[in-house]
Amino acid sequence: MIQVIETEWSQAEEKIAREVFDKAYEREISALIKQVQQQSNQITELEHLWNLHDFLSARRHEIDGKYDYRDSSLVFVFALLLKEGWLHVDELAGLTSDKRAKIVALSRM
Amino acid sequence: MIQVIETEWSQAEEKIAREVFDKAYEREISALIKQVQQQSNQITELEHLWNLHDFLSARRHEIDGKYDYRDSSLVFVFALLLKEGWLHVDELAGLTSDKRAKIVALSRM
Repeated sequence: MIQVIETEWSQAEEKIAREVFDKAYEREISALIKQVQQQSNQITELEHLWNLHDFLSARRHEIDGKYDYRDSSLVFVFALLLKEGWLHVDELAGLTSDKRAKIVALSRM
Repeated sequence: MIQVIETEWSQAEEKIAREVFDKAYEREISALIKQVQQQSNQITELEHLWNLHDFLSARRHEIDGKYDYRDSSLVFVFALLLKEGWLHVDELAGLTSDKRAKIVALSRM
């Protein structure tokens, strides 16, 4: 059975959600920038350049797909970001305990 | 009138052409690697990362299209590489004077 996710967010929750979302994005991109800088400084062979390009293409595609800010998908997005370590559970304080519980439960799947 | 380009290459010319072609490619990619390293080390904003990706995508597309090793297009490829400075005219010594003249003439267009 597919669990139906409550999609009602109060204005206060919306504000928190947006902040958490942006912060996670910033963290993930900052980490990616460091990785790209490291990888690009280690290029010694011509073909490594295209490896770097392939890597960036794949990461961009993945990140574009992941950061989908819609009320209906936000619980899933936060669960994934929690699982991957881009947000901390205490940053979700301020959301209803119901939503937090769902996010945490989904993040462990 | 479209000038018909002679497409007969002796074995000795083929060998020279391949070497010159590979050398030009190596030079262009090496320069691009330096540029990418520089650009990636200067990233200060999140969005610069995607600018770098866009830049790499465009350059790769351009380079893939340019380095077209077929006898029928080689004179044009060499003309372009000469124009852009990725090969030197004296590296073409060993090709028939007719081919060299065509390459040089095309490179000035």
